[in-house]
Amino acid sequence: MKSYRKELYFNIPSRRGLVNITPQVQQAIRDSGIKEGLVLINAMNITASVFINDDESGLHQDFETWLEGLAPEKPYSRYHHNGFEDNADAHLKRSVMGRETVVAVTDGKLDFGTWEQIFYYEFDGKRQKHVLIKIIGE
Amino acid sequence: MKSYRKELYFNIPSRRGLVNITPQVQQAIRDSGIKEGLVLINAMNITASVFINDDESGLHQDFETWLEGLAPEKPYSRYHHNGFEDNADAHLKRSVMGRETVVAVTDGKLDFGTWEQIFYYEFDGKRQKHVLIKIIGE
Amino acid sequence: MKSYRKELYFNIPSRRGLVNITPQVQQAIRDSGIKEGLVLINAMNITASVFINDDESGLHQDFETWLEGLAPEKPYSRYHHNGFEDNADAHLKRSVMGRETVVAVTDGKLDFGTWEQIFYYEFDGKRQKHVLIKIIGE
Repeated sequence: MKSYRKELYFNIPSRRGLVNITPQVQQAIRDSGIKEGLVLINAMNITASVFINDDESGLHQDFETWLEGLAPEKPYSRYHHNGFEDNADAHLKRSVMGRETVVAVTDGKLDFGTWEQIFYYEFDGKRQKHVLIKIIGE
Repeated sequence: MKSYRKELYFNIPSRRGLVNITPQVQQAIRDSGIKEGLVLINAMNITASVFINDDESGLHQDFETWLEGLAPEKPYSRYHHNGFEDNADAHLKRSVMGRETVVAVTDGKLDFGTWEQIFYYEFDGKRQKHVLIKIIGE
Repeated sequence: MKSYRKELYFNIPSRRGLVNITPQVQQAIRDSGIKEGLVLINAMNITASVFINDDESGLHQDFETWLEGLAPEKPYSRYHHNGFEDNADAHLKRSVMGRETVVAVTDGKLDFGTWEQIFYYEFDGKRQKHVLIKIIGE
């Protein structure tokens, strides 16, 4: 069994933002030399998500509106967590979208359906955050 | 390390529907010959989910009502994604229920609690969709 | 490839409660002797979650309030599932927070960001429940 590890770094200039990281994950699989296995991609920060969906800007606006409805950012005072912080909503939004995804590696590639793309979703930006890629297989 | 891959196909006649796919996953594990490892089961379409819960029809009705409350299908115009599509709600509902599950394989079987069952949840049916089963182990 | 399996047991005296299980997972990795691989941690009951977030009591109160808003416990009669049961809300809350998490094992340790901690979240307690830890790697 082989394993491979890589971190990606992000510094999103706004509080929230989406980045398509599919090319970086595919490159990590190539670099690993692993042909058959599993790849785990997870946010290493607890106010961000890694998830799979469509790369369509209208949908991304819909995610913004929808998550803000489910877990509003303001007023900050609505959350117990916001004593010294203002990011409780980021922890909740990330819980909806998920911390991680696991994808099959087949024949050295992401084993994906037609429209699957991997995204990093920042919910508390303006600082350095990171994502872990871990691949195991042969 | 061994690996095994199989796709399942669905063509649900309604917009939404649930299918218990536990027997197909167990059969894939038998076919793989893998005794100890992990099995990943994921929707390959971005308007469907794979998740684990109870096979109880009352609960399935509750999921329907609850998800419709969290991310209503209509009016279609409420979503930016629905310019040429009408399935934005399906992308959101799938985000709540999740794309994938990972299950332990122990002694050649799904290593499950008493009531755990694996479901495919269609949110935008009336067309062919697919699910990936990927097993790694020994 | 090596594999290792362990169950954790819980008997939470209230309906809902959170337990930080990071030390038990780290101990299982040590016991397994696995240095590089993946660890799956999942609830074996369908009314509980395993998830990763911050070990901060204010945030945990926010989770309680927020989940109760998304999927209220009462009135019990609002759910079809509650014919002989009263725990439909527990199935829904667990769907938001997730059944499982998969974490990278690197150099014999949980490969974690600074604030990541693994929690068991009970939504229907006062009885024995269990969590599965399955590790594969080398």
